[in-house]
Amino acid sequence: MEWINKQNVLIVGLGLMGGSYAKALKRIGCRVTAIDKSEDTIKFAIDNNIIDDGTFKEENEASFVKEADCIILALYPNAAIEWVKNHVDNMKEGIRLTDVTGVKSCIVYKIQEILGDKAEFIAAHPMAGKETSGVENADDRIFRDANYIVVPTDKNTEEAILWCENLGQILGFNKVSILSPEEHDEMIAYVSQLTHCIAISLMTCKDNEHLKDYTGDSFRDLTRIARINENMWSELFHVNKEPLLKEMDLFINELTQLRNLIDKDDQEAIKEKMRLSTKRRSKFNQNNKNK
Amino acid sequence: MEWINKQNVLIVGLGLMGGSYAKALKRIGCRVTAIDKSEDTIKFAIDNNIIDDGTFKEENEASFVKEADCIILALYPNAAIEWVKNHVDNMKEGIRLTDVTGVKSCIVYKIQEILGDKAEFIAAHPMAGKETSGVENADDRIFRDANYIVVPTDKNTEEAILWCENLGQILGFNKVSILSPEEHDEMIAYVSQLTHCIAISLMTCKDNEHLKDYTGDSFRDLTRIARINENMWSELFHVNKEPLLKEMDLFINELTQLRNLIDKDDQEAIKEKMRLSTKRRSKFNQNNKNK
Repeated sequence: MEWINKQNVLIVGLGLMGGSYAKALKRIGCRVTAIDKSEDTIKFAIDNNIIDDGTFKEENEASFVKEADCIILALYPNAAIEWVKNHVDNMKEGIRLTDVTGVKSCIVYKIQEILGDKAEFIAAHPMAGKETSGVENADDRIFRDANYIVVPTDKNTEEAILWCENLGQILGFNKVSILSPEEHDEMIAYVSQLTHCIAISLMTCKDNEHLKDYTGDSFRDLTRIARINENMWSELFHVNKEPLLKEMDLFINELTQLRNLIDKDDQEAIKEKMRLSTKRRSKFNQNNKNK
Repeated sequence: MEWINKQNVLIVGLGLMGGSYAKALKRIGCRVTAIDKSEDTIKFAIDNNIIDDGTFKEENEASFVKEADCIILALYPNAAIEWVKNHVDNMKEGIRLTDVTGVKSCIVYKIQEILGDKAEFIAAHPMAGKETSGVENADDRIFRDANYIVVPTDKNTEEAILWCENLGQILGFNKVSILSPEEHDEMIAYVSQLTHCIAISLMTCKDNEHLKDYTGDSFRDLTRIARINENMWSELFHVNKEPLLKEMDLFINELTQLRNLIDKDDQEAIKEKMRLSTKRRSKFNQNNKNK
């Protein structure tokens, strides 16, 4: 496989995700370099053998880009677009780029346009994470039970799609699949962004400090993700605004319907909703026995 | 302590909760009897030494009631009220009753009125549970990390309140506290009933079977409780309708606000919400290191 050995991989943005990619890729014999704004991050990563080399100085970035056989963008969406714009001229002809961003339509088309025929960008979303951040917490075991989604457009070649799928397998993801940017963004608006909006609103709708002693598992489960990196998530919401608003409206409408059924004492309709939710959630359990 | 030894405890309704009470009380030397409509349940509980004696026949109930030094109601709210109505005449003079019901205002005052001076009802809510049900799954270890709330009214004596707090300690609850019926019902509408409504609506708002492969931990966390006993929960929603609607409106309003901030691209206001939710949720974590 193309990924094994001799690949010179450049990771741009060495946080939890970039660092975890680095660990997995070093293990299979890639030469891994990284660019990050933080001197501490680069030093830590070199000292701990997470990367082979790297730089935190803008003036050195070009030489790392020139050497790269492929590039993994592990930046926030807007920063990824900016970075590609600034460095496209230094890239080797025909290399492949991929990313780790949680939203797609807003960046895939733009990056592909910037690259033109110079290089090929094939987007991917590794649906893994931890509640901690930073390269110090990098750990490629987070990929084991997680999903990896390749998100091609019409402009992508079969070879690049396969290359990106292989990357997901090499990283150790449980399942690798393919979605269009639009399918991906609708899905992520529902299963991830909407759930974070719900968790936030559950915490902010009411002064609840005095309730700490009374919460059971359900409240804790629903609000675990209410601790949130506000810079990253406000940007993710912004760039995926249209699908997110659609899912929020769908959910608010459904919850309002349930509210009105309770208000009207329509027991049979309420039970019908509960049976549907039970049936659907049971299917999820069958798929993932351990969750 | 009054609870140790010689108490003749009657448990009415031998499900997961009644059975778990029985196990804990047998262990400290109480004589435990039970009434349940199911022959299998009573047989299983006697065969497995969960209770000392019990009946599934209505015509035998009176003799068990006459012997009881105290009674634990482990029935659905309306069934509990009915049962007390039917059996008050057979109760020993001055005994105490308690319950395990998840809603309070709707039953406490009614049961206290039915009992009059004959016996004293002191309500309690053991905030424990499992996703399984039935006496076969009874297990008093579910009380260990959980909260137990004593819910007295003006009619309750200091002695009964203390007796009920002692019961919570004996059962092995992590924390025993006191709330008024109204405080309790508002709290439970927020931390338990609203969260169940949210989980249900997340599953019912959208056909999601094809999304099984893409869900991460957040979606699974938020919908774990979407598998729901529709008979019990529709009754719980009904009897606690007023506080529940209030909390639902609060939450729907807050989520709609967040939706509108996203729509207007008000990044600073969105970040402010996120900071508040992060701060509040972090305090919850400090309180329960393991959750």
